Amino acid sequence: MAVFTSKFRVYYEDTDLGGVVYHSNYLKFCERARTDFTREVLQFSQKEWLEKEHKVFVVGKLNCVFKRSARFEDELTVSCIPCRLTSARCVMYQEITNQKGEVVFALVCTLATVDTDTGHVVALDETFAQKVAPYVQSELKMLVKE
Amino acid sequence: MAVFTSKFRVYYEDTDLGGVVYHSNYLKFCERARTDFTREVLQFSQKEWLEKEHKVFVVGKLNCVFKRSARFEDELTVSCIPCRLTSARCVMYQEITNQKGEVVFALVCTLATVDTDTGHVVALDETFAQKVAPYVQSELKMLVKE
Amino acid sequence: MAVFTSKFRVYYEDTDLGGVVYHSNYLKFCERARTDFTREVLQFSQKEWLEKEHKVFVVGKLNCVFKRSARFEDELTVSCIPCRLTSARCVMYQEITNQKGEVVFALVCTLATVDTDTGHVVALDETFAQKVAPYVQSELKMLVKE
Amino acid sequence: MAVFTSKFRVYYEDTDLGGVVYHSNYLKFCERARTDFTREVLQFSQKEWLEKEHKVFVVGKLNCVFKRSARFEDELTVSCIPCRLTSARCVMYQEITNQKGEVVFALVCTLATVDTDTGHVVALDETFAQKVAPYVQSELKMLVKE
Repeated sequence: MAVFTSKFRVYYEDTDLGGVVYHSNYLKFCERARTDFTREVLQFSQKEWLEKEHKVFVVGKLNCVFKRSARFEDELTVSCIPCRLTSARCVMYQEITNQKGEVVFALVCTLATVDTDTGHVVALDETFAQKVAPYVQSELKMLVKE
Repeated sequence: MAVFTSKFRVYYEDTDLGGVVYHSNYLKFCERARTDFTREVLQFSQKEWLEKEHKVFVVGKLNCVFKRSARFEDELTVSCIPCRLTSARCVMYQEITNQKGEVVFALVCTLATVDTDTGHVVALDETFAQKVAPYVQSELKMLVKE
Repeated sequence: MAVFTSKFRVYYEDTDLGGVVYHSNYLKFCERARTDFTREVLQFSQKEWLEKEHKVFVVGKLNCVFKRSARFEDELTVSCIPCRLTSARCVMYQEITNQKGEVVFALVCTLATVDTDTGHVVALDETFAQKVAPYVQSELKMLVKE
Repeated sequence: MAVFTSKFRVYYEDTDLGGVVYHSNYLKFCERARTDFTREVLQFSQKEWLEKEHKVFVVGKLNCVFKRSARFEDELTVSCIPCRLTSARCVMYQEITNQKGEVVFALVCTLATVDTDTGHVVALDETFAQKVAPYVQSELKMLVKE
């Protein structure tokens, strides 16, 4: 199965005085790729979901490893692979590689759903679960454990 | 009249690879000071206002000048002075100074109110207008024009 | 003359609890477009310039107007037009439009050059000045004044 | 041993359209507390270290759990406890609690040192190691594993 990827360039805003990308910004690149995967591959609109059902995804757990620094004007490729699905959680594995194909960063994150009216965690949306199920790769070789 | 100020330290997240604070982050420091002024001086709760009346302040216009660079671990003092008030707008003048008392940045911004249900600009909240009116300094010497 | 534009999508990171793009993030979108213009059109490498000559562009003045809110998953088009050039400054005019072609934000900013070793403003790089000169549009209709 | 903490308020910039703090911003709050701990408790100047020795700390691994959402205008308390020290790594455990004393977020991160001239990981600074050693709490009850 082909792996979904999004591409993002590194701009000034992403760097810090160490001259490379600030650590928490790798999480932003990964979130952009999850949003792109959800919209483009799953064709599930988080925008309508929020407006109509007042639900959003939240990150429950996150485990990551920083392998190399990304630098100004690098073009990063960010993957997004669902690797586990339960009634309440969707786990995603993501890697960021640079233009040389070197792995910069890898992440496993557990997504849950929150009802923005109550602030409580609720079950995963059934439509989302049905759409994401065919893409789950449970036998994935990952650089970081869930 | 004493000028309200808030203090904020410069952290890694605020800098870029040029070694100084990234330009748009000065706007964040100013917004923090406006929020502090509104909460501490005016005792107007933006949080309740949003929850109960679904209203937020938005920036309509912004004019600013960058005088010096702020650096990692600098302690910045950010002022907030209302300088003009109409039925729909509140104009704020703000300066950022470093620990040596040097002006780093100055800004004039025009705040309007948006109804988050409709997305439309509405009149300034009457309670807010009454609370802010005594603090308006119209004869202010400013480093940047509205 | 064709106007250079870059396209950027609005992600979660760009929004705030008002449900729309946080005000200072429009400046980030504009900076990305300036970086793209400099790299793609002018073929001037800010990365090499910093590494070899220890120089960076800094924003000296900035005047902007917020016309509409940009929203989650909007695809924004950001223009970048040099509108004035002196020995020390390059002034850029930029507009952000949404996917309906509506103007969201307009900005005029004055760029200067700083030597990162001394922290001082220096003359504009001659190579940059020569490359940008043919693109200067001084008779531009702008939504915000310099 | 008393636990070091820093306090930070939640501003608009920290939230997203879900109405709560954007997930990667908890990492920023933790990094601020690490910087404060290093400066205030250890009296080790990262600023001088970068300027004189061209060294910075980088995050190598990071494991975190999101327990509750932090909200606009919350006042967050962020702890910073060194929990393991080797010749090349310093591991920190951190918790973020809200004004009710509820745990919002917990993190374990592994810090390494990078030489900004070469981009390579080098041994931990000896002065830093000596200063941090007395604060290491290896028998710590942690909400998330290294």
